[in-house]
Formats: sequence, C-alpha cells, structure tokens
Amino acid sequence: MKRDAEFMPSCPIPITEYPHVLMAHGGGGRLMHQLIEKVFLSSFDNPILATRHDSATINPGGSRLAFTTDSYVVQPLFFPGGDIGTLAINGTVNDLAMSGARPLFLSAAFIIEEGFSMESLWRIAQSMRKAASEARVELVTGDTKVVDHGKGDGVFVNTAGIGRIEHSLVIAPSSVRPGDSILLSGDIGRHGIAVMAAREGLAFETTIESDCAPLADLVIQLLEAGIEIHCLRDLTRGGLASALVEIVEDTRYCIHLNESVIPIHEDVQGACEILGLDPLYVANEGRFVCILPKADAQRALHLMRSHSIGAEAVVAGDVTDGSPGRVTMTSRIGVERIVDMLSGEQLPRIC
Amino acid sequence: MKRDAEFMPSCPIPITEYPHVLMAHGGGGRLMHQLIEKVFLSSFDNPILATRHDSATINPGGSRLAFTTDSYVVQPLFFPGGDIGTLAINGTVNDLAMSGARPLFLSAAFIIEEGFSMESLWRIAQSMRKAASEARVELVTGDTKVVDHGKGDGVFVNTAGIGRIEHSLVIAPSSVRPGDSILLSGDIGRHGIAVMAAREGLAFETTIESDCAPLADLVIQLLEAGIEIHCLRDLTRGGLASALVEIVEDTRYCIHLNESVIPIHEDVQGACEILGLDPLYVANEGRFVCILPKADAQRALHLMRSHSIGAEAVVAGDVTDGSPGRVTMTSRIGVERIVDMLSGEQLPRIC
Repeated sequence: MKRDAEFMPSCPIPITEYPHVLMAHGGGGRLMHQLIEKVFLSSFDNPILATRHDSATINPGGSRLAFTTDSYVVQPLFFPGGDIGTLAINGTVNDLAMSGARPLFLSAAFIIEEGFSMESLWRIAQSMRKAASEARVELVTGDTKVVDHGKGDGVFVNTAGIGRIEHSLVIAPSSVRPGDSILLSGDIGRHGIAVMAAREGLAFETTIESDCAPLADLVIQLLEAGIEIHCLRDLTRGGLASALVEIVEDTRYCIHLNESVIPIHEDVQGACEILGLDPLYVANEGRFVCILPKADAQRALHLMRSHSIGAEAVVAGDVTDGSPGRVTMTSRIGVERIVDMLSGEQLPRIC
Repeated sequence: MKRDAEFMPSCPIPITEYPHVLMAHGGGGRLMHQLIEKVFLSSFDNPILATRHDSATINPGGSRLAFTTDSYVVQPLFFPGGDIGTLAINGTVNDLAMSGARPLFLSAAFIIEEGFSMESLWRIAQSMRKAASEARVELVTGDTKVVDHGKGDGVFVNTAGIGRIEHSLVIAPSSVRPGDSILLSGDIGRHGIAVMAAREGLAFETTIESDCAPLADLVIQLLEAGIEIHCLRDLTRGGLASALVEIVEDTRYCIHLNESVIPIHEDVQGACEILGLDPLYVANEGRFVCILPKADAQRALHLMRSHSIGAEAVVAGDVTDGSPGRVTMTSRIGVERIVDMLSGEQLPRIC
C-alpha cells in the first residue's frame, strides 16, 4: 500500500538532550515516566490509556475486563525464589490484581536468542506452567521468535493478561481521600536484592529469596469481604517509594510514611547497606500497597495477615491534605523527609 | 516463597540433537512447529490452546472474544511500505481477523536497546498511531523495558490484541470440507522481498513495497454478507505454502493449488529468481486465504476484488478428499508436485 507523505509532529523529547534511549529510560523513575508520557501516551492518546493504570479497563461486550501487558527482561534468568517464567506469570497476574480483577487468561510471547539452551527454555516453560496453575490462570495463546546470536539476551518473555472486574469500585489514585490508611502487604526489597546478588555473584550469610508471588487471591478476598479499596499498587520497578510518588503526583493529597514500621528483613537491610542501596526504591514482585478508609484498615490488616503472602502486613502510613501531592516519611530517628522518585533506578533489569 | 523440590519432566526435544535454539526454530517451518508443540503446548496444555489457532477464543463473561499476541523483531526496522510499528499493529489485527473477530483493543510492549535513537522510537510510535487509526483499534495499555547495549536489536515490539467474535461460525481447519474453494486475497511475496532487499541493500529496478495491511475490514464484510467461511489463515512466516500445509496436517482432506493463477508481481518474481527463493514460502503481511463452500466462492471473490486489499484476489485451488492431508500444486508447465513445509525459513526475521 502506498503511503502518502504526511505531516509528522517532531519528537517531543528534545533530541539534543536525549538523542538516545538510556538504561534509565526503563528504570521506573522520572526518565521512564517522561518517555512513556511524551512518546507513547501522546501518540496513542485515548481515554482508556489516559487513566495511566497498570491495566486498562475495557468493555468489549458484557463484562468489564482488565487488560495488561508486560515484558520481562530480568538478568539472570534464574534467581533464588524464581526465574523469568515465574516472574512473567506473577507480574502480569499482579497487574490485573491491582485493578481488583480476577485474572483469567494470559498470552505468552518469547523472543529467544539463537544459541539459547533448549534445557533452560524447557525449565522456564515448566516454571510458567506451575506459576499459572498456582495463580489459577490459563495460558491460551502465544508466539515464538528467534533473533540472531548477539541480538538478544537469552530469552525475553512478554505476557499479556485479561481479568474480569467483579466489583463496582473505582480503584485508582482519584479515589484516594485524606484520612485514608496505607496498608503495605509485607517486607520490602527482597526481589531486587535476590536478583542483584545472583547477577553479581554476591554471597550473603543467608540466601535472599525473591518475594515473587501472585497477589490476586488476597485482593479478591479483601474485595469479597466488602473492604472499600480506594487504590492498589504493586511495588515493582522503583519500589515502594516510586509507587507512592506515582500515586500522589498531580493530586491534592499527600502520603506520609512511618519508616519504623516498614518491614525489611535483616539480611536485605544488610545487603542494602553493603551495596549502598535504599530499600525503599528496590523492586518487589509480591508486595503491594492498599489505600483504603481508616475505618476499614484494621479489618483489612487482619485479612492480609491471615493470608500466606500478607503475613507481615502493616499500616505503613496515611493520607493527609496537601497540595501539590507528595510523599513524606518520618525516619527511624524521628526526622521527616520528602521521598521523591529517582531519575532512573538503582538496579536495572530486575523484572 | 520457598519452592518445594518437585519432579520436572525432562525436555521433550532431545537435547543431544538440539542442545540450543536455532534461527530455524523461529522460521515458521517444521522446527518451529516442533518447538512450540513439544516445549510450549505440552507445558501449558489446555483446551483453548489446543485449538492451535493464531488467536484464542475466550469467554470471560458476556461476549466471545478472540485474544492473540505477537512479538515483532523485523530487521531492518524501516522498510519500503512500512516499519516495525505498522507491522506490530497490522500483524496482530490480522491474527484477530483470522478468527473472524472485530479487532478492538491492543496492548503495546517495547523492549528497547540502550542507545537506540529517540527519533526512530518516535517515528515508530507515530506509525503505530496511524496504523491503529486505520485499523480502528485502540492501544489501551503498554510497557517499556530497556536492555543493555548489545543485548537487544534496536527495538522489539510486542502487541497483544482483543477482538469481539460477532458470528457463530467455527472458523478452523476442522470446518474445511472436500469440495471447498481456496480464495487467495492477492499477490504474494512482497513483504518478505521488501524487507530482504532493505536488509541486504539490494536495489531492483522498482522499489518493492511490503503488502502490510489490516485485513479485518474485508473479513467482516465477507461475514456480514453471509459468506459461510470455513477457515482463514494469513500468510506470514513461511508464506502461502506453510499456511496451507499447517491447515491440512492431521486432517483427512487435501488442498490442490493451481500455480498459474497465483498472482506474483513481476518484480517480486524477478527478485525471487535472482535470490533463489520460492515465493510460495516468502512472508506476506496483508494476504490471506479463505476456505469456503464452492457455492459461495464467486460471490466472495467479487466482494474481495471490490476491496482495496483484495483487488487481485483469485480462486487459487480447491479441497479434495485424501488422507493423510497434504498440499499439491499443478505447476505452470502442468506438472503436479507436493508442497511441503520447510524446516526453517528462507528469510529469517521478516516479522
């Protein structure tokens, strides 16, 4: 088909400043948000995309559905507590869960580097089978591509997911109100440190395992108990800090955290100190925050702690009035500070 | 989460024979089918996946939907007639169309190599915007990952798509009957040759342009006209030959083609002769076959030829009795031969 010459608007990211894509453009911080906003959202502008959720809410006929996609490029492919296969299932299941949807169907697309070990590919497929079964989703369609040796990195996996929204809440930053409580589902920082340690061959006294886990079951339990959830966010790239800053940005409320109650396992804390990392920004794959009315907080906390993936849940902070929206934290020694988003990320390629 | 040691079946592809993934495992031929069958289908076994369609039919509540995914790894990223962006939209739209579904929503996931040109990324996003608008689909959710320089190839794009199935036919190889006609929607081989020429810097007398185009509109017109479509297949990796062999395999009918009526543009034919390629195996991105009762064939042909993307449509052959299912062709000089699937593909990374 002949394409007509057509006016193309010029690139909205100043190419004198950023002529090339940097690792930081994929790091979950400020630069990634700018890239997504200016290059992708401005091109594909539509009301559904404009909600900027982890998953889109669509209604192709009958039920409200959540629809989401994620590519997984983690290195190394295998790490304590999981591999790229478990990640590819749980990550997408969790994006659906963050809309309060019941995950049902997943696609799986593989970009394999020529020369990749057949045995490793098989292990990854088996991990996906197991994780899908645990999360009660079905892998119903797929794709396989092979790229030349040196043009990939072992294997990249993309999963897209469809879930059914069975509640009538609007689970979004726009539903958050001053006075709400911030529930954190467990300890933070394990996934990022587990991957980092495996990548760099670091040995700590104990093996730190990824927290990679499916979150939908717990979220659905909360909804079925009638908890009025205002907002959910899983704490992947950019960690707890970036997730909360993303929520409050462009709003007229603030989030205040108490550092002393945020659970961080001793070995993770130690590893972060050695490596000079702030656990607030380290990625998790089985942790989320739930923002909800204070009146529901204790009941929700009890439900979380009764579930295997929420055993260490805490009320980590609350929502206060204040504009522009920002995140503040009272540190362990009682000092209050602003929590901002990093420009890139401390640890690239952890998901 | 601690994972229990668990029995893992050993890899069903003999790793003594194929210890590593080869380019041919992604080429649309015999080896790719073996990989998908033995590694992925055996792991993710479920009734929906077992139908082995380009897209899965799901019913998450209310409407029957088609759900599909494809990653695009074409090199070069820009070629006459399109780029990886147009391909990523039309390819997935076409997979939905091959279920007779109306494409509605797409996801877009980018794996970008560090150092990739920001301007090129913008051009690709703009191509996607334009192609999505032409195909009347909305890009509603996305993901961005950046991998280290040397661990990718510019950019890989994955799109997953959701369409609504508004007919009650079973469009599948199982619906094909002896006596059916094979309609081919137009000339073959242009996409593969356009990409190949761009990749190798080959200059022919005329610039051969990809046939990349969205097929859903024409398919929906056929359905709305009451044409009883038995099977649809787009002619991507592996070309016309592989698509037809895929359809007849494991069935009790054969397909017979007349080579002399298959449209191949002179410049494509010339390029194939110079390059030693068989156009039957060269990929297309805007061509499909429609298998339907002979009684409907002339009416469907007329509808196809009235549509811009089907102007050169022909009745390319018919379905006959015979087991095991295979594809035969009467050549231009009247010799009959068997058309089989290649083990890999003649041209890698054309989609």
